[in-house]
Order: sequence, then structure tokens, then C-alpha cells
Amino acid sequence: MTPKLDHIGIMVKNLDASLIKYMSYLGLEVKKIEEIEVEGNQDRLAFLPIGETQIELIESSAHKGLAGDFLKAHGEGIHHIAIRVDDLEKTFNELRSQGVEFMWNRVIDRDPHTKIAFFTAKEFNGVYVELVERS
Amino acid sequence: MTPKLDHIGIMVKNLDASLIKYMSYLGLEVKKIEEIEVEGNQDRLAFLPIGETQIELIESSAHKGLAGDFLKAHGEGIHHIAIRVDDLEKTFNELRSQGVEFMWNRVIDRDPHTKIAFFTAKEFNGVYVELVERS
Repeated sequence: MTPKLDHIGIMVKNLDASLIKYMSYLGLEVKKIEEIEVEGNQDRLAFLPIGETQIELIESSAHKGLAGDFLKAHGEGIHHIAIRVDDLEKTFNELRSQGVEFMWNRVIDRDPHTKIAFFTAKEFNGVYVELVERS
Repeated sequence: MTPKLDHIGIMVKNLDASLIKYMSYLGLEVKKIEEIEVEGNQDRLAFLPIGETQIELIESSAHKGLAGDFLKAHGEGIHHIAIRVDDLEKTFNELRSQGVEFMWNRVIDRDPHTKIAFFTAKEFNGVYVELVERS
């Protein structure tokens, strides 16, 4: 695979208030704001491109799972890094055959153009690392 | 300024053990390992390029300050994001004149080619954001 940093996910309590700071202090612009369902919870996301990668601000009311567990343990903060790969099914299966553990145990279709998989946090000592394939 | 993501800083307990995972699971390579003094403490850093940015793994024995406070509160995890700016003194002074708060209250010469400044964590709701100028 040819790794690239797809995005950095940052959990925030108040998306609108946070956006103002990322824009005015860092000169970033918002490309898109969207609501998506993650693990049965409705999350609000904002995407701010920075060079060839982007910052993804995430406002979630989840009480468990990927966002909820993090919020409980850490509060607001940098939640995950996402690495772009060319063929996620292939990478996923190769790593699984080596005993590497992922959440959900399968590749997820995040939207029609995006496949994702998260390593379990223990694989990177508490850091959530996501793999992303975009078409 | 024309923002770019300079690096992502990740605190780890054991640099050598962590490096193996970032290399074998994500296909990253180590460009450099160095020891630097940060706030009177000797930290060990590894730099892994990814596209136009890089991951910086940080092993620190600090008990207070930038690394120590984070380790106490969070344990291992993604510590900061660093944004590249063209003229750090200018950006720093402009933001300070608007009341934005930085740690250390001045721009620091990280090495002869690198100037840095960290926003206080409260400016980004607990997230450490660094500004970097490289020459």
C-alpha cells in the first residue's frame, strides 16, 4: 500500500463554536458539514481541508462505542488518524491473517465511495487508527 | 498564512515497540530518531513521513508540562497537531493581539531551522495545537 494521511478526527462538544476557532486562528475553511449515523448514533461532522489531508471535527452524543467510549475516557480531544490505502479488503485480510484485531470484524461501507475499518485501540496502544479506501 | 499539516504528535510509552506497529501495520518508514530537550526533560522522538506530512512518536519521561500533564490525564494517545505557517512571529503576534493565548508567551527556536509555538489547550477545547515555521 502507499500510505497517505486521509484525515484526523477530533471530538468536540460544540461543533459550531469549535469551527470558529479552526477557521479564525488557523485560516482553515469548511468544505462540508454532514450528519451521519455511526453505530446507531447521529453524529455531526465538519470537514476542513489542510494541504492534501483534512481535519474532521466530530460532534457526537454517543454514550458508548467508538465516540462514546472516547468521550467518557478523555472528553474532547484528537480521536483518531485515518490512513488512506489502495485496497482496503486486501490490507484488512492480510493484517487479520497475521492476528491483527479490528473493530466490527469487517470492512464497512461508510458511503458509496468510502470503505473504512478501525483497528482496535489496543493495536496502537490506545490510539484509534482507521484505514480508508476512497473511490 | 497558507496552512499545511506539518505533523501529528503521538505520545507513546515505548518508542521501539510502537515503531514496529506503525511500520508493519501501516507500511510507514522511519526517517529519523532523535533526542531533544523539551521543558528540561529529555524526550525521544521518531519521525515517520506519510505523504506531505509526518507522524512524530514521542517517548517522554516528563511528569509535568506539555508531555507530562497529558500523560497524567490521558496516558498514551494523540498529543497534538502541528500546522505549518509561513511567518510564525507575524502569526503569533497577530493572534496575541486578538487575545489568543499561547504557552511560553514567545516563539521558541526548536532547532536552527524550526520555530514553534503552542496554543494553550483551552484555545482548542483541550486539543494541543502547535504552529511551526520551517526554513
